[in-house]
Amino acid sequence: MIVRKKTNIFKLFFILRGSIVPKILPQILFVASLGGAVAIAHRHYAPIFPNITVAPFALLGIALSLFLGFRNNASYDRWWEARKEWGQLLVDSRSLSRQVTSYIDGDTESGKWAQVRMIRLTIAFNHALRHRLRKTDPWDDISQHLEADDIAPLKKSRNLPDALLRMMAGKLGACRQKNMLSEFLIQSLDDRITSMAGVQAACERIESTPLPFAYSLLVQRTAYLYCFILPFGIVASQGFATPLFCAIVAYAFFGLDALSDELEEPFGHSANNLPLAAMARATEINLLEILGEEIFPEPILPIKHLLE
Amino acid sequence: MIVRKKTNIFKLFFILRGSIVPKILPQILFVASLGGAVAIAHRHYAPIFPNITVAPFALLGIALSLFLGFRNNASYDRWWEARKEWGQLLVDSRSLSRQVTSYIDGDTESGKWAQVRMIRLTIAFNHALRHRLRKTDPWDDISQHLEADDIAPLKKSRNLPDALLRMMAGKLGACRQKNMLSEFLIQSLDDRITSMAGVQAACERIESTPLPFAYSLLVQRTAYLYCFILPFGIVASQGFATPLFCAIVAYAFFGLDALSDELEEPFGHSANNLPLAAMARATEINLLEILGEEIFPEPILPIKHLLE
Amino acid sequence: MIVRKKTNIFKLFFILRGSIVPKILPQILFVASLGGAVAIAHRHYAPIFPNITVAPFALLGIALSLFLGFRNNASYDRWWEARKEWGQLLVDSRSLSRQVTSYIDGDTESGKWAQVRMIRLTIAFNHALRHRLRKTDPWDDISQHLEADDIAPLKKSRNLPDALLRMMAGKLGACRQKNMLSEFLIQSLDDRITSMAGVQAACERIESTPLPFAYSLLVQRTAYLYCFILPFGIVASQGFATPLFCAIVAYAFFGLDALSDELEEPFGHSANNLPLAAMARATEINLLEILGEEIFPEPILPIKHLLE
Amino acid sequence: MIVRKKTNIFKLFFILRGSIVPKILPQILFVASLGGAVAIAHRHYAPIFPNITVAPFALLGIALSLFLGFRNNASYDRWWEARKEWGQLLVDSRSLSRQVTSYIDGDTESGKWAQVRMIRLTIAFNHALRHRLRKTDPWDDISQHLEADDIAPLKKSRNLPDALLRMMAGKLGACRQKNMLSEFLIQSLDDRITSMAGVQAACERIESTPLPFAYSLLVQRTAYLYCFILPFGIVASQGFATPLFCAIVAYAFFGLDALSDELEEPFGHSANNLPLAAMARATEINLLEILGEEIFPEPILPIKHLLE
Amino acid sequence: MIVRKKTNIFKLFFILRGSIVPKILPQILFVASLGGAVAIAHRHYAPIFPNITVAPFALLGIALSLFLGFRNNASYDRWWEARKEWGQLLVDSRSLSRQVTSYIDGDTESGKWAQVRMIRLTIAFNHALRHRLRKTDPWDDISQHLEADDIAPLKKSRNLPDALLRMMAGKLGACRQKNMLSEFLIQSLDDRITSMAGVQAACERIESTPLPFAYSLLVQRTAYLYCFILPFGIVASQGFATPLFCAIVAYAFFGLDALSDELEEPFGHSANNLPLAAMARATEINLLEILGEEIFPEPILPIKHLLE
Repeated sequence: MIVRKKTNIFKLFFILRGSIVPKILPQILFVASLGGAVAIAHRHYAPIFPNITVAPFALLGIALSLFLGFRNNASYDRWWEARKEWGQLLVDSRSLSRQVTSYIDGDTESGKWAQVRMIRLTIAFNHALRHRLRKTDPWDDISQHLEADDIAPLKKSRNLPDALLRMMAGKLGACRQKNMLSEFLIQSLDDRITSMAGVQAACERIESTPLPFAYSLLVQRTAYLYCFILPFGIVASQGFATPLFCAIVAYAFFGLDALSDELEEPFGHSANNLPLAAMARATEINLLEILGEEIFPEPILPIKHLLE
Repeated sequence: MIVRKKTNIFKLFFILRGSIVPKILPQILFVASLGGAVAIAHRHYAPIFPNITVAPFALLGIALSLFLGFRNNASYDRWWEARKEWGQLLVDSRSLSRQVTSYIDGDTESGKWAQVRMIRLTIAFNHALRHRLRKTDPWDDISQHLEADDIAPLKKSRNLPDALLRMMAGKLGACRQKNMLSEFLIQSLDDRITSMAGVQAACERIESTPLPFAYSLLVQRTAYLYCFILPFGIVASQGFATPLFCAIVAYAFFGLDALSDELEEPFGHSANNLPLAAMARATEINLLEILGEEIFPEPILPIKHLLE
Repeated sequence: MIVRKKTNIFKLFFILRGSIVPKILPQILFVASLGGAVAIAHRHYAPIFPNITVAPFALLGIALSLFLGFRNNASYDRWWEARKEWGQLLVDSRSLSRQVTSYIDGDTESGKWAQVRMIRLTIAFNHALRHRLRKTDPWDDISQHLEADDIAPLKKSRNLPDALLRMMAGKLGACRQKNMLSEFLIQSLDDRITSMAGVQAACERIESTPLPFAYSLLVQRTAYLYCFILPFGIVASQGFATPLFCAIVAYAFFGLDALSDELEEPFGHSANNLPLAAMARATEINLLEILGEEIFPEPILPIKHLLE
Repeated sequence: MIVRKKTNIFKLFFILRGSIVPKILPQILFVASLGGAVAIAHRHYAPIFPNITVAPFALLGIALSLFLGFRNNASYDRWWEARKEWGQLLVDSRSLSRQVTSYIDGDTESGKWAQVRMIRLTIAFNHALRHRLRKTDPWDDISQHLEADDIAPLKKSRNLPDALLRMMAGKLGACRQKNMLSEFLIQSLDDRITSMAGVQAACERIESTPLPFAYSLLVQRTAYLYCFILPFGIVASQGFATPLFCAIVAYAFFGLDALSDELEEPFGHSANNLPLAAMARATEINLLEILGEEIFPEPILPIKHLLE
Repeated sequence: MIVRKKTNIFKLFFILRGSIVPKILPQILFVASLGGAVAIAHRHYAPIFPNITVAPFALLGIALSLFLGFRNNASYDRWWEARKEWGQLLVDSRSLSRQVTSYIDGDTESGKWAQVRMIRLTIAFNHALRHRLRKTDPWDDISQHLEADDIAPLKKSRNLPDALLRMMAGKLGACRQKNMLSEFLIQSLDDRITSMAGVQAACERIESTPLPFAYSLLVQRTAYLYCFILPFGIVASQGFATPLFCAIVAYAFFGLDALSDELEEPFGHSANNLPLAAMARATEINLLEILGEEIFPEPILPIKHLLE
């Protein structure tokens, strides 16, 4: 995620980091060049030029705006829903930690053990989920929070975050058999785990189900066709301003399309994706503080405005 | 569901699988041919041509965009809601399995029996629901997960997924009478079953209640009328570019309409529908792992980018 | 509700049942005739014709689309919310029935009585609610599900569905005093009743609170004014195509308006309203099956594509 | 709230009650007169007239539609949310009444007292909330439902509805100390009270937080500027039809603006506001019937189509 | 937040407080001056002027409206969600206070202590959250509500509101060990605390995750480019009315952009942000009244229409 203050107008056109421009520059330049070529050709061979005007572009422009607008809304909703789910994970992580520290008796050894286990497994879940969503290796981040005996069975699991939640429930079941927790608290803590399972399933849904592919095709084909024939439509009235207009229109349409592309998959590594690493680390620090630890890992800070 | 990486611009116009084009090619060709015929006729008989201009098309175009946009939004919402419901089913399936393995004592024979029954009935529910929504035969997928005595009464039921949920509740009631589960856990597990009933009812609602038929008529009639008279409106200004414009406009409008048609019924077999078979199978594997099984069915993979 | 397969383009313009056209035909014909009259008058008396052009119609057209689009969205949301509420009612009806058959001991006489009473009162609630929303007489459908003693007090009630819910709660209270149900189950079943009360209140809200009347006036007045002056605006450029355009524009605008009118009140009897009778009957059959009955009423099927 | 049947086209333009026209007539007349003056001036002094055309109005018109459409959606959402909250209050009122009559033993004196107190306090809450939202005096409506001793402390409270809820919770606490209610029922009834507190807070939120003031300014300034320069833009092409167009455009834009103004504050007394008095009275009658009373206050009926 | 009555048309254009105009005046003046310069240059050197027309601006205008409209909707949703979260905090604060005063026995010393502690910690949470969101110092507002021993550990915490919630849970845990509260009430009160944690996480999410930076860039660059080339497009047809049109268009587009900027970050100090200080103070007074205090702090009132 790009972290920047608002900029003023003088710098507005010189910002590159976080801008979508570098990604779509080839397309913009191509359309602008096409516009230039058409303008020159029109000046010299106007009579044999196809006799088209700008009117039908308005019709197409409305349709194209409809497509781009819809895709943008849907992508943004996915991005914001993903962010909300991670917010919910923070609530669940904090609340579960608060509940085990407040309602399990931490003065007994087994009580303290249960507190530490539940909170550290919650931290591990946060890291495991973000690594699963980004398809990276989780073990550097989570092994320090696990007991040695637990690592082997977890490594065999096909779905690590889900296995961690089941391990948490298993520990709760053990507490229950030892009567360390009332039925009420078991239910309350299990509700938290179910809620975390909900966060995981929602993130997996967003990650595994993109917008219908036919939609992306429809949008992009229409946008490209539109920009490729636009110079012919405006050259008669705009003359040598044609490349400028073509470039601005291409910037607006391709820019929105490229941005929607990034937001559609909010768990990636691009500049407009969610800072999963920083969020998981912040939760880790928060929960270690609840646990009473005094040594914390470093929070992840933005590098050149980019927060991972 | 089509599973594809994003494509680059060079291939963009050559993708067929997952594209909506093959479905609407006849209409596009017809409108383009009409455009061509009108252009030729106009060249030769311009004076007797109806004297219409492009202006009123802008008025109609706004209305048509409104219709198509609304229908598209509503269809997409149905598709995404259906996907969310299947995500909820995954949460419920996992959580119920987690709860029975954590809180029922699996060391006793009756406890183990209860765990196996509840989880396998959950798997059967997943398959039964997807076959019901697609109107296909479920017994190949579910009979292995049922006890022999249970099959006969289930076969008589008019609504198999609902009967499976009631069978699960019946087993819970039996556990309760044997005091194998506390009241709290009964309530917690029953909440899961009620949530699965909610998923089923939501899917049945989407499947049985299409968008109002009058709406589809209104949209399609307006779109066809629009495209059929469009050539007459633009021929005077666009000349022999008329067929090209007509084809692009027809592609945009009919393409969106055809795509909305597919998304409106998210449980079908077409390229933009949900991969119910793959999702149910993935849940089956997930739950068998929770149960400690070591032999799993094969996950369903995309064939030629199409995931069933 | 109209139940139809998708149609092909050849039949598209000949479907009447479920189409909104018959309802707005007078208006369309009037506007088309006006367009024709204006076209003829313009041919003969062009010089004295008011000198107006199509440009301001674009301004008005955007505003009108905004109005119609908003009203359409709001009406559709009401229709779909109403459908969702009936889906929720199905979940509640099934779940309550599942719970009473699973967790009340049906082998004792009083237990069996409680099961039958709760389920039959739920069926009665479904019918009572739909008759209340449609302002028809419920007693044919519900009296068979009630005990003779219960009918008299119910007939005196001002709000039959609400009285049925209170009667269900009364039976639950009786079960509780006889210790037939644990406190947990009382709470769980009462949650179902509260949820059904929520469905009823939501349906009553939709039924009693239409869109603000001033909004309907604003939309319809603007649409009529627009269509009445449209011929004067396009006659100069479109000539004898004027009536055709006027008819299409009138069809699009009045059609959307008339359809919004129907969807706004989703509980009526018109072609685009919800099939309350069929839904209540389907729930009745579902619940009788849960109860173990063997004789069922006939499901309600569509007559000439229309499902009541 | 205006309560009217749909009207037919002949009467459409003659309805005043519920129409927004009287409110914006001065503005419409002013813009129309301006249009007339400009048309006359243009006829006589065309050469010295500013040479502007209709094109830039299309650009501004899109922006203005965007503004008005957004404001309208936001206002309608506020209005409909307010209505939903009152629907939730009805559910809570009915459910709480149903629960106290079903699960508190009404045969003992203290049980009967508790039932009567809880239900009458709920009625009082309904009235107190609506008077608070409308800033009117509640005591005529609520004092009959209170015990003499309770009136004095309530009169001192800064927030009457909130104080009533606390009084209800106090009575519940008293019941609990006398063991008249199980812990479960206390929790269930307290959930109702919390839900009513949620309704109150939501209504207070809508009442105290209007749309951002800068937004209203932006919308209205743009709308006025637009309508004031519109005559100059269309006079050249529309001639003496200018005042007519100006009046229709002003009607559409100012009408939507004025309606949004009313819907934005759904608890007021204007024609498009919610009928709080009638709703509170209907709930009162409903709850008195649950209580077994036989004398009811009169329901509030619409006067000249206006329901308060 | 600006608190103002609706204004009438005569004053409409003279309001400064709460208007967005002062913020964007430089841009408006710049665009207007540019328009003036272009108009003068065009009068004198028309032949060498680039030959562009207004048509392509309509295409760009639709795209720009799409961008600005989307950004505006997203920002408003953030603002309104933030307001809803604070409404939820009010419900939780009131309900928790109601529950501790109703269900904890206030006649014993330890019971009274628990009531006072829970309510005062809730007040402290309200203040701590608003100061955290605004990055101001909380201690003036909260230290009076804390016990002397509690201040030191809280000062060490990295996240004060979260630490306050954990302190509340700790007190609850202490009450539980002394059997002052039933398990049910513990669960009920803990639900309130979890809900407050949800409010905090939602506010932190809104505060820490702005709209994607690329989006702001895309919108602002397009808006500026549009306004900078607009004079060249309309000068030929509008002549010396060019600066006027440019100013109005710039006002509409930049105004919406600047307002979206403010609403996007609803917790700031600008005129259209939420009045956090006034809301927290109002909750403080409300809760002190519940506690039976008789001396209240002053409510915060608007100063020159501005409520902090």
